[in-house]
Amino acid sequence: MTAKEKAAISPTREEDYPEWYQQVIKHADMAENSPVRGCMVIKPWGYSIWELMQKYLDQRIKETGHVNAYFPLFIPLSYLEKEAKHVEGFAKECAVVTHHRLEEKNGKLVPSGELEEPLIVRPTSETIIGESFSRWIESYRDLPLLINQWANVVRWEMRPRIFLRTTEFLWQEGHTAHATEQEAREEALRMHQVYREFFEEVLSIPVILGEKSEGERFPGAVSTYTLEAMMQDRKALQGGTSHYLGQNFAKGSNIRFSNKEGQVEYAYTTSWGSTTRMIGAMIMCHGDDDGLRLPPRIAPHQVVIIPVIPKPEHETAVLAYAEEVKNLLQCVSFYGSPVSVIVDKRDKRGGEKSWEWIKKGVPVRIEVGPRDQEGRSMMVARRDLPHKEKASVSFDQAGEAILNMLLAIQKNYFDQAAALRERHLKKDLKNFEEFEQYFTSKNQEKPEIHGGFVLAKWCGDSATEALLDPLKVSIRCLPLQQSGTAGTCILTGRPATLDAIFAKSY
Amino acid sequence: MTAKEKAAISPTREEDYPEWYQQVIKHADMAENSPVRGCMVIKPWGYSIWELMQKYLDQRIKETGHVNAYFPLFIPLSYLEKEAKHVEGFAKECAVVTHHRLEEKNGKLVPSGELEEPLIVRPTSETIIGESFSRWIESYRDLPLLINQWANVVRWEMRPRIFLRTTEFLWQEGHTAHATEQEAREEALRMHQVYREFFEEVLSIPVILGEKSEGERFPGAVSTYTLEAMMQDRKALQGGTSHYLGQNFAKGSNIRFSNKEGQVEYAYTTSWGSTTRMIGAMIMCHGDDDGLRLPPRIAPHQVVIIPVIPKPEHETAVLAYAEEVKNLLQCVSFYGSPVSVIVDKRDKRGGEKSWEWIKKGVPVRIEVGPRDQEGRSMMVARRDLPHKEKASVSFDQAGEAILNMLLAIQKNYFDQAAALRERHLKKDLKNFEEFEQYFTSKNQEKPEIHGGFVLAKWCGDSATEALLDPLKVSIRCLPLQQSGTAGTCILTGRPATLDAIFAKSY
Repeated sequence: MTAKEKAAISPTREEDYPEWYQQVIKHADMAENSPVRGCMVIKPWGYSIWELMQKYLDQRIKETGHVNAYFPLFIPLSYLEKEAKHVEGFAKECAVVTHHRLEEKNGKLVPSGELEEPLIVRPTSETIIGESFSRWIESYRDLPLLINQWANVVRWEMRPRIFLRTTEFLWQEGHTAHATEQEAREEALRMHQVYREFFEEVLSIPVILGEKSEGERFPGAVSTYTLEAMMQDRKALQGGTSHYLGQNFAKGSNIRFSNKEGQVEYAYTTSWGSTTRMIGAMIMCHGDDDGLRLPPRIAPHQVVIIPVIPKPEHETAVLAYAEEVKNLLQCVSFYGSPVSVIVDKRDKRGGEKSWEWIKKGVPVRIEVGPRDQEGRSMMVARRDLPHKEKASVSFDQAGEAILNMLLAIQKNYFDQAAALRERHLKKDLKNFEEFEQYFTSKNQEKPEIHGGFVLAKWCGDSATEALLDPLKVSIRCLPLQQSGTAGTCILTGRPATLDAIFAKSY
Repeated sequence: MTAKEKAAISPTREEDYPEWYQQVIKHADMAENSPVRGCMVIKPWGYSIWELMQKYLDQRIKETGHVNAYFPLFIPLSYLEKEAKHVEGFAKECAVVTHHRLEEKNGKLVPSGELEEPLIVRPTSETIIGESFSRWIESYRDLPLLINQWANVVRWEMRPRIFLRTTEFLWQEGHTAHATEQEAREEALRMHQVYREFFEEVLSIPVILGEKSEGERFPGAVSTYTLEAMMQDRKALQGGTSHYLGQNFAKGSNIRFSNKEGQVEYAYTTSWGSTTRMIGAMIMCHGDDDGLRLPPRIAPHQVVIIPVIPKPEHETAVLAYAEEVKNLLQCVSFYGSPVSVIVDKRDKRGGEKSWEWIKKGVPVRIEVGPRDQEGRSMMVARRDLPHKEKASVSFDQAGEAILNMLLAIQKNYFDQAAALRERHLKKDLKNFEEFEQYFTSKNQEKPEIHGGFVLAKWCGDSATEALLDPLKVSIRCLPLQQSGTAGTCILTGRPATLDAIFAKSY
């Protein structure tokens, strides 16, 4: 695209990144705000991406030994109180059910049938699942207990933003119980790796694996493991998290077992989750000024074929040829499944169709017209290249060529995101003054977008995290890969050995 | 099983059918009541059955042209009021969210942050989806709009019963909009047929297809199409329902489109749903006094292999052989998927394992011991035959033999259910006196279980339905297949042509 040409999405990322994000979602027809404050409607294109996410993660969750189950939407208020930090973490943002019917009063419907104990719409299910675990587990033979749930959850959101922060969202939440701390930590780290693999290999999003500092931990957890990804505005977005909960929730919910020696112990539990927020991460990591760009492994359609019919007499032959191309490509296997192809036969101009699929992020577009049909070839465009770049590919070579393109696009998006992160991962800041300047300086090329990730030493004193608040910066994680070197804390100048990643975040 | 032998489930169906139902669920480890009144926990075995139901229905829903989407859990109170009969139908049984946080007051957590307008936890989504439809639809080119949602819904239940009647349940709800009444009616009938096919061909449950009388219709519908199945206590259970909504909801939600002539019209809408209740139907239709019996097409494991290891020195050879049998059977295709087989290697006695799988309803059990391993054979038991009947099958014939057994069991359960219904479908009652006696007589073989389905003429006057209330009987449906003959109304003696099915129901 030349500098003068107008992009499909207005404003561009440079002009107004938050508004660009909303417009990409709108133009790709993925989701919209609903009349219920903070709740979104996930439209078919957005939901089909979620279905692909579910399919992949569900398979990996089962392959790692877990089974799915379903627990109640409602949590009695008293259950939430079973873990002190947990209730503190969620009490300020929960939907409370207080009545179980409506009745007419002065011609108006009002709540009626007040409940003895209010019910909370689950913000997460540790406490309600813990109640079941306490009954299901008696001996070490019942362990490990490895359960997953696909569900909707509600956390009241004052500043909602589609996919990133919504009052209701969809997720999976794993909950497991183990006989030893070691097994439980291994479980939390295993699922952390499943999320990494999903982000990097399926979503093409490079992530930094690490542990959260105390101030950023899940309420009630001993350790929270996180994935941190850089978005194109250089802010961090947290991917799936995995928590080692120690015996905190086991004590709150009375999850005990008799060990091999016949002694009764509290179990060690974990929980781990990933949400519809991942759709937002993918948009912000890969989208460009023409809209969404979907990594092929998560694209509902990997290839769209657009028949070009200049005159009615061409229709039969061109449509038949388009179907032939479709059948050919569906015989190609991409990561174990047939390539997903559609022929767009709608009664619209070709250019209009083409732009729709560009904005929806479909990886490969193929145009077939009368000349292509006669010459048994096709014009192929890749979403990761400028939209006017088209290559002619012969029918005989199409299978291999398209497969290679899908593989290349999948890798290209990852490489582009990794390069962006590399450019904006600052490793040489010397002190808090430089640190402050990095996150506040307006004297940069793009005044709206500044800062990035800072890798620096931290003394580990959680009281120092307060220094970051005025900058709207936080410790994103303590990377699992620690250098082990000694240095000085970027916040206080004290001696420090811990490596930490600092950034603004979503 | 001889008459004297004790059944695995106590009480038996004859002794106490409702309690037998609860015990089957408990012994098969499918689900349990939760501490949240009326809400159930669906345990892994029950949930894996639901996953198979979802997989089949989701595929058929997509094959019939629908796409999935997701709409908010919460419905503003005012939305529910958009359709008068609809709010009347659901106001008495809904969960009402009135606050969005908790705060401490005198050391106690209490609801805080009162909402300006209360929110209803969706009992069904016509009104909230209608709001989206009103914005998505402008012209006839946007029609038909064919949407499905997988979700949880809440209808406050005063007398809950696992799977059959729970405050929260899981379901799919289809919502479609069309340009003409004819198209919308065809859609409702098409999905009615999808449900029929699922009940009869997958769940092995024979159903009577029909339309609901006015008194039994979905609140706000013009026509409700239903499937009615007979349970073993001869009561009716309603399967999926499909509603033709006319323009009622379109008017309430302002779903309008401009037709080909440029005139603005209200759309014609439908909705259709099927729920976790189907699991209850399957239990009550096929279960016996030894527990659950799963039709092979809906069994999470179709075959379980139990290695019999009399002495430690047999272990290696027997386990290797068990794996060989498993691999063999996994190469057999049953309705397009590999046969699902597990080897139960748990450290328990063989008899104990065998009874567990009987109670869980697995269609085929295979025992392999040292002698089987040496002779390359196996002992095979079918869940639809007495549990001691075992047949020796050679390894070479096992693939074909097991496939034939699965097909036979699938058919056998259907035939048994159809025979039961045939025995208890009363067609020759002459007047209301006989009708009353049929549903109340205690002078029968099994005093607890009496009555059945009555096929009789009805005059169609909805005021007459009140006559049925004292008998706890209702018109289950007006069968789609009408005889067209003239006769007298079984309730009033008036001239009547309509055929109707009457029964007690769940």
